[in-house]
Amino acid sequence: MTTPVSPLAPAVIIEPTPIPGVRLATRACGVRYQQRTDVLLALFDPGTTVAGVLTQSATRSAPVERCASGLRGGSARALVVNSGNANAFTGLRGVSSVENITVAAAAVAGCEPEEVFVSSTGTIGEFLPDERITGPLPDMAADARPDAWGAAARAIMTTDTYPKTATAETEIGGVPVRLSGIAKGSGMIAPDMATMLAYVATDAALPAAVLDALLRPAADASFNSITVDGDTSTSDTLLLFATGKAAHPAVTSADDPALAPFRAALNGLLLDLAHQVVRDGEGATRFVEIRVCGAETARAARRIGLAIGNSPLVKTAIAGADANWGRIVMAVGKAGEKADRDRLAIRIGGFQVCEAGLAVPGYDETPVAAHMKGREILIEVDVGIGGGAATVWTCDLTHGYIDINADYRS
Amino acid sequence: MTTPVSPLAPAVIIEPTPIPGVRLATRACGVRYQQRTDVLLALFDPGTTVAGVLTQSATRSAPVERCASGLRGGSARALVVNSGNANAFTGLRGVSSVENITVAAAAVAGCEPEEVFVSSTGTIGEFLPDERITGPLPDMAADARPDAWGAAARAIMTTDTYPKTATAETEIGGVPVRLSGIAKGSGMIAPDMATMLAYVATDAALPAAVLDALLRPAADASFNSITVDGDTSTSDTLLLFATGKAAHPAVTSADDPALAPFRAALNGLLLDLAHQVVRDGEGATRFVEIRVCGAETARAARRIGLAIGNSPLVKTAIAGADANWGRIVMAVGKAGEKADRDRLAIRIGGFQVCEAGLAVPGYDETPVAAHMKGREILIEVDVGIGGGAATVWTCDLTHGYIDINADYRS
Repeated sequence: MTTPVSPLAPAVIIEPTPIPGVRLATRACGVRYQQRTDVLLALFDPGTTVAGVLTQSATRSAPVERCASGLRGGSARALVVNSGNANAFTGLRGVSSVENITVAAAAVAGCEPEEVFVSSTGTIGEFLPDERITGPLPDMAADARPDAWGAAARAIMTTDTYPKTATAETEIGGVPVRLSGIAKGSGMIAPDMATMLAYVATDAALPAAVLDALLRPAADASFNSITVDGDTSTSDTLLLFATGKAAHPAVTSADDPALAPFRAALNGLLLDLAHQVVRDGEGATRFVEIRVCGAETARAARRIGLAIGNSPLVKTAIAGADANWGRIVMAVGKAGEKADRDRLAIRIGGFQVCEAGLAVPGYDETPVAAHMKGREILIEVDVGIGGGAATVWTCDLTHGYIDINADYRS
Repeated sequence: MTTPVSPLAPAVIIEPTPIPGVRLATRACGVRYQQRTDVLLALFDPGTTVAGVLTQSATRSAPVERCASGLRGGSARALVVNSGNANAFTGLRGVSSVENITVAAAAVAGCEPEEVFVSSTGTIGEFLPDERITGPLPDMAADARPDAWGAAARAIMTTDTYPKTATAETEIGGVPVRLSGIAKGSGMIAPDMATMLAYVATDAALPAAVLDALLRPAADASFNSITVDGDTSTSDTLLLFATGKAAHPAVTSADDPALAPFRAALNGLLLDLAHQVVRDGEGATRFVEIRVCGAETARAARRIGLAIGNSPLVKTAIAGADANWGRIVMAVGKAGEKADRDRLAIRIGGFQVCEAGLAVPGYDETPVAAHMKGREILIEVDVGIGGGAATVWTCDLTHGYIDINADYRS
């Protein structure tokens, strides 16, 4: 099955800047897909620290458990990712596949198994032919080079219609620091964790605990604030590696004011990647930003935003360019958070649609309907209770989603 | 827009048995639809008791608030239902429309306003032209007759492709008792409350408190255990009226053993109506029963079942007759309830697909694939934790759902 590139794709796929201390290699190993790269090996220089956010699924995969274990150590030397097979729900044999890959990667990286991170994405419930991955690893290590980020993004794609890449330059204490990252979508996208796979590296020199403290809020405001279908993968993994090659002044706390530019750059890069994931949502034809304010708390606002963003009735209305704001009211009502029906206000595309519990006097749908026909939809909701605000992003629900998912394995 | 009748519709639409003490009238009032009936008036003889279950939506409609108020009194003499306009999110004017209908119905029924129940279903956020309903009420009251249940079911339809009716005969203390009911779907179907509208009447003589105690568990096991799209209406209403015309021995407690047959009949009738709602789910081509066992509690089992039943990825796989059980594992994982990945077992169509955390040895997909091509799909999941069990019902997610909902208002 070939799917055309999403109409919401970025005009240009950025080639991320190389990160000193990171080398990448990709290969067509035939794990499942033929005639395309499907395995990524990333090698990190000694001293690289790592933090991560993993799926909250109760049935998370063996590779995710490997990552969870590695994150406790906080040190990373190798990452192996394959696409086409998720190695999820494969029992002890799945665990043993992860072991095999870990041992093989540790050998080529010259590191401890605890410093190896493994991800798999694709079909659930089929045994991973791990020898197709472990066999080529030595050759891949020999080929690894710093300028292969774009290739890396392509190797981890499944139903993605374009590779997701991002890069940023910032500074810590006046010393330049770089960040580069890749991600993949594009179904099973919902918070906890939101994207299936995302990897970011920086040459900043930051202890794992500091990285972790920076990463969690950034993930909440990006990957945990997007949704395509409300389904949560068993494999969701976001990892942030810091090689420490940049010679900036030492930082020992996430609260250090010198981290402000880095924090902003990290937040921006994760949000960029998260948006790219939404823009490649299966069958997506419109990108939707939902801003919620007036909720009891920020958390309540996010839940309301996600209730709107996950509602099939809202998403199909958007697909049909139908300014059916009644469905937004419905979704606010079902979110399980406080809302005041008679103080609720909604704007679509910047146009006030309703306020104080009913349609605005003389409501003219014409400009709203014109906005709904565009590629970028903005929905603003004030639920009239308190000061909590949050923004979430989603896409519409179209025939394309059904086409892709009613026959994914064929 | 005309939609063909659901392929899952019952072969025959039952005409419910008249219930002594209940008279019904329907009329084409042009509230929104043209050339079809869209208003139902039900009149109940003095002494009729009532219980109900209403939507948990935080943005519930003015008619639902009227019902909530009426249920506190426990006495019913009239019910007015219109289709085409939900009178939801219409502010004070919506409240005043409900008032107008209530006062007009109380006049024709010769009762207190507190004994009038009002429901509206259809588009949200538009003012209800209530004069089109109140005007004809006196004529409708004059026309009301006991044998109009089928017509009543048709008058409350919106996107339903067939009317939902059910009827049952049972006994209390050896005296025959009848139950008849109607319901409507068919989008925005999810628990709390699950169907948009359902009305059941019986000639049993039961205090409102007893009716309530019987109705709540019956609703949990039926309307609160079905889902079409996970969206919850602002108007969901289930009402149970008891006219007291049957001359059975007095019952003053829901625990009275004499109620056992009545309870079973009520449970069965609600389940029948709930299934009919699912079978008319927008775009549905397959009816899906999901039995969950081994959960921590019955409540956890139901949540897991609904996570499976609401998953767009599971539902599109079913639409495509794809036995993609990995998506079931995913949905179990995201339900937020305890599950043991390595003890999880799944059967589809009675065939063991996986157990102890992986595909069964020598798994043959052929019979499972054949089952998936049918109209009735059975999924059984043992999550391997405890003794909690529940069954939920849903339908597949197809192009038809998108067709209907991307352009509902046009």
